Amino acid sequence: MEQMDGTADTPELQRLYEDFDANDLAPLWTQREGIQPFVPSPKAVPHVWRWKMLLEIAERSGELVPVGRGGERRAISLRNPGLPGTAYATPTLWCAIQYLGGHETAPEHRHSQNAFRFVVEGEGVWTVVNGDPVAMRRGDLLLTPGWNFHGHHNDTDRPMAWIDGLDVPFAAYTDVGFFEFGSDRVTDEASPAVSRGERLWAHPGLRPLSKLEDTASSPLAAYRWEHTDRALTEQLRLEDEGHPATVGQGHAAIRYVNPTTGGDVMPTIRCEFHRLRAGASTRLRHEVGSAVWQVFEGSGTVVLGGTEQSVQKGDLFVVPSWTSWSLHADGEQFDLFRFTDGPIIERLHFQRTWIPGVSDDGAGGTR
Amino acid sequence: MEQMDGTADTPELQRLYEDFDANDLAPLWTQREGIQPFVPSPKAVPHVWRWKMLLEIAERSGELVPVGRGGERRAISLRNPGLPGTAYATPTLWCAIQYLGGHETAPEHRHSQNAFRFVVEGEGVWTVVNGDPVAMRRGDLLLTPGWNFHGHHNDTDRPMAWIDGLDVPFAAYTDVGFFEFGSDRVTDEASPAVSRGERLWAHPGLRPLSKLEDTASSPLAAYRWEHTDRALTEQLRLEDEGHPATVGQGHAAIRYVNPTTGGDVMPTIRCEFHRLRAGASTRLRHEVGSAVWQVFEGSGTVVLGGTEQSVQKGDLFVVPSWTSWSLHADGEQFDLFRFTDGPIIERLHFQRTWIPGVSDDGAGGTR
Amino acid sequence: MEQMDGTADTPELQRLYEDFDANDLAPLWTQREGIQPFVPSPKAVPHVWRWKMLLEIAERSGELVPVGRGGERRAISLRNPGLPGTAYATPTLWCAIQYLGGHETAPEHRHSQNAFRFVVEGEGVWTVVNGDPVAMRRGDLLLTPGWNFHGHHNDTDRPMAWIDGLDVPFAAYTDVGFFEFGSDRVTDEASPAVSRGERLWAHPGLRPLSKLEDTASSPLAAYRWEHTDRALTEQLRLEDEGHPATVGQGHAAIRYVNPTTGGDVMPTIRCEFHRLRAGASTRLRHEVGSAVWQVFEGSGTVVLGGTEQSVQKGDLFVVPSWTSWSLHADGEQFDLFRFTDGPIIERLHFQRTWIPGVSDDGAGGTR
Amino acid sequence: MEQMDGTADTPELQRLYEDFDANDLAPLWTQREGIQPFVPSPKAVPHVWRWKMLLEIAERSGELVPVGRGGERRAISLRNPGLPGTAYATPTLWCAIQYLGGHETAPEHRHSQNAFRFVVEGEGVWTVVNGDPVAMRRGDLLLTPGWNFHGHHNDTDRPMAWIDGLDVPFAAYTDVGFFEFGSDRVTDEASPAVSRGERLWAHPGLRPLSKLEDTASSPLAAYRWEHTDRALTEQLRLEDEGHPATVGQGHAAIRYVNPTTGGDVMPTIRCEFHRLRAGASTRLRHEVGSAVWQVFEGSGTVVLGGTEQSVQKGDLFVVPSWTSWSLHADGEQFDLFRFTDGPIIERLHFQRTWIPGVSDDGAGGTR
Repeated sequence: MEQMDGTADTPELQRLYEDFDANDLAPLWTQREGIQPFVPSPKAVPHVWRWKMLLEIAERSGELVPVGRGGERRAISLRNPGLPGTAYATPTLWCAIQYLGGHETAPEHRHSQNAFRFVVEGEGVWTVVNGDPVAMRRGDLLLTPGWNFHGHHNDTDRPMAWIDGLDVPFAAYTDVGFFEFGSDRVTDEASPAVSRGERLWAHPGLRPLSKLEDTASSPLAAYRWEHTDRALTEQLRLEDEGHPATVGQGHAAIRYVNPTTGGDVMPTIRCEFHRLRAGASTRLRHEVGSAVWQVFEGSGTVVLGGTEQSVQKGDLFVVPSWTSWSLHADGEQFDLFRFTDGPIIERLHFQRTWIPGVSDDGAGGTR
Repeated sequence: MEQMDGTADTPELQRLYEDFDANDLAPLWTQREGIQPFVPSPKAVPHVWRWKMLLEIAERSGELVPVGRGGERRAISLRNPGLPGTAYATPTLWCAIQYLGGHETAPEHRHSQNAFRFVVEGEGVWTVVNGDPVAMRRGDLLLTPGWNFHGHHNDTDRPMAWIDGLDVPFAAYTDVGFFEFGSDRVTDEASPAVSRGERLWAHPGLRPLSKLEDTASSPLAAYRWEHTDRALTEQLRLEDEGHPATVGQGHAAIRYVNPTTGGDVMPTIRCEFHRLRAGASTRLRHEVGSAVWQVFEGSGTVVLGGTEQSVQKGDLFVVPSWTSWSLHADGEQFDLFRFTDGPIIERLHFQRTWIPGVSDDGAGGTR
Repeated sequence: MEQMDGTADTPELQRLYEDFDANDLAPLWTQREGIQPFVPSPKAVPHVWRWKMLLEIAERSGELVPVGRGGERRAISLRNPGLPGTAYATPTLWCAIQYLGGHETAPEHRHSQNAFRFVVEGEGVWTVVNGDPVAMRRGDLLLTPGWNFHGHHNDTDRPMAWIDGLDVPFAAYTDVGFFEFGSDRVTDEASPAVSRGERLWAHPGLRPLSKLEDTASSPLAAYRWEHTDRALTEQLRLEDEGHPATVGQGHAAIRYVNPTTGGDVMPTIRCEFHRLRAGASTRLRHEVGSAVWQVFEGSGTVVLGGTEQSVQKGDLFVVPSWTSWSLHADGEQFDLFRFTDGPIIERLHFQRTWIPGVSDDGAGGTR
Repeated sequence: MEQMDGTADTPELQRLYEDFDANDLAPLWTQREGIQPFVPSPKAVPHVWRWKMLLEIAERSGELVPVGRGGERRAISLRNPGLPGTAYATPTLWCAIQYLGGHETAPEHRHSQNAFRFVVEGEGVWTVVNGDPVAMRRGDLLLTPGWNFHGHHNDTDRPMAWIDGLDVPFAAYTDVGFFEFGSDRVTDEASPAVSRGERLWAHPGLRPLSKLEDTASSPLAAYRWEHTDRALTEQLRLEDEGHPATVGQGHAAIRYVNPTTGGDVMPTIRCEFHRLRAGASTRLRHEVGSAVWQVFEGSGTVVLGGTEQSVQKGDLFVVPSWTSWSLHADGEQFDLFRFTDGPIIERLHFQRTWIPGVSDDGAGGTR
């Protein structure tokens, strides 16, 4: 009889394997470890994309490729080197640099996929979400939850670039996405400093009495840099004063949340902002689920799966599932935005974290 | 045989009723309607207390009664005329004016009862909640959720008065309350403009990564007037611009919420702020559950159970369960704070609302 | 100046206290401990009612008092000796023996108050809940959640008695109750062995695909003795086999739950069944919230607030909040039903338990 | 300038596309519709596998391939013809026939992936889940939630086959899976008729007081056919009697649920059983998410994406996301088991259903 590893070979066995194939079947025993590895073994690899390169290539695209209906967006996505043939940063997350020239408009559409934009530099574009014009400025996080119509228009003479994050790979893989065209121009070309969503919702701890029903995604279309910066500044000051506030020594961090629930901003995507004091480090850590980071300000070192790299303003890097990572701030404060598929992992109860030297070992630990 | 109304009278029946009494029993049939009325029939009555009177009597108490351990607080509570022998505004809610002279201290203690303070005028007192000094200023809502140590100290030469709201009657009735003395002085006599709780939590849509566990009560000790005022102002502006934002025509309102859940600030007490434009009215409405209102600014008319009264800055009034109420703003903007036992009613699924002319009739409507 | 205990006496002070009264006010400092005691200090007292007495007095009522519209039910409620002038077993719970003669009918009505019946002996009555006839038999728990029409009819020549449990005191105190008359006779006089609710819902772990929306109260109108008995029997057998299953040594127990949520059967009332092996005891325990117990079978000893009593089949006893209690089974298996206001206490976050010698001390322990 | 469809071609543009490639980037505009289609466009296709073929090939495997450590299971999985190179029935679901000869043992292991077994015929194997031996019999659903040790042993001389369902493809794609070997033999070789989990939990509406904490997956290891059959039989009888009980005319159905929550049995997999009366049909329906069905008894017709097929006892078929499906029972009662990725879809808020002629059209409907 054959060994369970599938190596033995007799005519009967060969016929059996042929019959598996012919009948659209596959034996588990020859591939068990491939599909059920001892620890997560992502095909996606850690990788760094440089902002300088991204911006330069986006500018060239701006000259050569018009934006309009069909292609919809002048967005250039990070393709994980471990996922050739795709346009995906990780198996679940899509990340792109998007570029809009002076007075250009990206037409309105809507889709099941959840989306956000984060602005590492520049301003002048308004994203119009279900008819509400939302200014985009440096340090802002802007949301476009699933099935909200949205388009962008540049109200200035200068181009603007930013990053987009979506759950496009997840939605494609699980076959859940719908898409619909909307207006060819944005439905409201006004350029207010503050969106209507913020005017209703961006008051700490206050909820409109007209909006008591919880929503799956945050009703707050914009999370402004001034609030993020202040929250992080206060955490570090509280740490200085001896009070618990930071997530680790010298490491302030906030999660962007849905004010109707206190939970993640969208059902599939988690957004956070991290700040390390000059000289501070995070412990090496393995986490289930994948993440994309962007350096917002300062420079530092990131160790990804054992390889160290220097990163600076605008640089993007991906951390696949269970790949170890740590951050170190060099001579100055180090600010980073990150987004992850954390809500997918947690809502389906697959979360696990391993901090060598602190928590249990990764392979055998209980969840 | 006796009729079910209990009126018949024979020697046997009389003996039966005597035996009920002797055995600690009571027949339902003689009192069914008393204990299960067709609609809620509160003993508490609608009533108005004038701020002028309250402040004057508080000042006299300040001269005559020291504040200190044992009595704990120089607080004078509203006693509902329908609930004689108690100190209760409604069956579930306690409301008092509290008064602290220049440089006085109310000693620290903690109790299961949930508490808040709301400031209709003045400043200069810090309430110290679990060691965190929280400035009290006009228009602020300050929380002291159950089992948090708290004391107050007046950092100035001038007295200050404010209102306290608690679930004391509910806790007394259901026998759930514990009480413990703490420090005779406040544990931190600093007088910062902003509390540590606010520095961590008062950033719209941002949650500290070090505080991801939800809490039964809000971690935000102070809700500042500037935020409340701005939220209401924006709602009315949005209404002017044609967008849905207010809870009724000319009627802006916010609910104070726990940022970890988006729900009520404390498990038993709901806090809200309402603003009516000059000339605006609310529809007459019956609601299950009781409420206490305080006029914050402006003047207007309140119709309580069919009786109309004029109210002005600082005046307090109670609305017992199912008592009809409506508000009307006279010649100026009308601002009111209210607190209710809404979370009790809703978590136990007793909520029902009747707006004559809009929703079903009160007695026979489905819940 | 007066001491904070309110004992000093001057003309000014006397005038102040008179003015409090005249203005519907009450000072906190003279009554703080009364309304905010160090530990819960219920007026309700522990008490035992004997089944023999209850049944005898119910039979006499059956002869003397007809059942019908207005009085609605021939129910005789336990009046806690500490709550004179009421018909209440505890501040939150109402408990009565109800008696229906052969072929009598208790007319249909509905109310906001949640209700159940538990049968310690007898059979022959059907309670008709929203048109679904539910047989009542020894050991069964039958639910009538708030606002469901219900009436009872005796399909036999023999009288039947059982206990009713409701949240009537809580609803009366908080002013939340509505009441409505229904049909003078039950709307379905059939007498099936199994109700339609059970036919849909009483299948372990199986949910009708036509009923995916969760309900505040259990859709299962009857919890049958055969299931309860089997569950308890299996717990004790598992304990014998060395597996964790019981809540304490020799102490099996189940909670009746809403199959749509796994939580309590109704928003305000918790129902449980406890079985002690011959000779087994429970540890002395203090709990926030009140309870009513009924001995179902066997006999034993209950220690209530330090006083020991023997109880037998059908006897009822109340345990007020924070009153210590323990049970001891004498020479035979000891079966008891209990219901409590646990859901009220837990949903409002007031729960606390103290087991002397095991958990922290009661007064100073953190919650 | 290039058109947004990516067709234009100039040297500059060609260089741009080469530079995308060289820098691990991909433009959105050339592939937007591929990754964000108008409606879900699964690669997986509808397909039927015949039980006769599966059983025959499993028997041959039983002769030729031993079961043991490494390969772990003699399981032969359905490979969707639209997903060549995989072992997956759908992008999220794995389904296999597993075969265990007389007195064989499949060794213990555990993994993050959630698993169940369903038995269409036969008996004699015990699956041991975390040390609890669970008998497997015709019509039973047996659960092995993530990270529970489990092995199987055949206690008889006869072979047994059944189907396994897992979330292996989802876990592989999202990189969330851990795996660990356990005992080479099952840790408890007893063969009780009822598992300990059932003895604790399989009592309708009764929860052990020792197990009040909710669990992500059901604690009930076995859902027995006698309960399922009875639940479906009662639904059809209730329909006959004129009461709402079935999900459609002549169509009874139950969902297997976690008794601690009333929700799905495991975080990623939904299990249901459907019964159609002879002659009954379901409406054609499109649903987001994929499913695998197995005919349990009877025969009928299934229309999958417009193609009609006859299916009989044991036959398996897959329904990819948004592929239309309907069932028709021929001359006899038609019983089917199904499992889906419904919990993934719903927890992440991607659910949408389209029933042509009843609900809105599929592409443009609101979610």
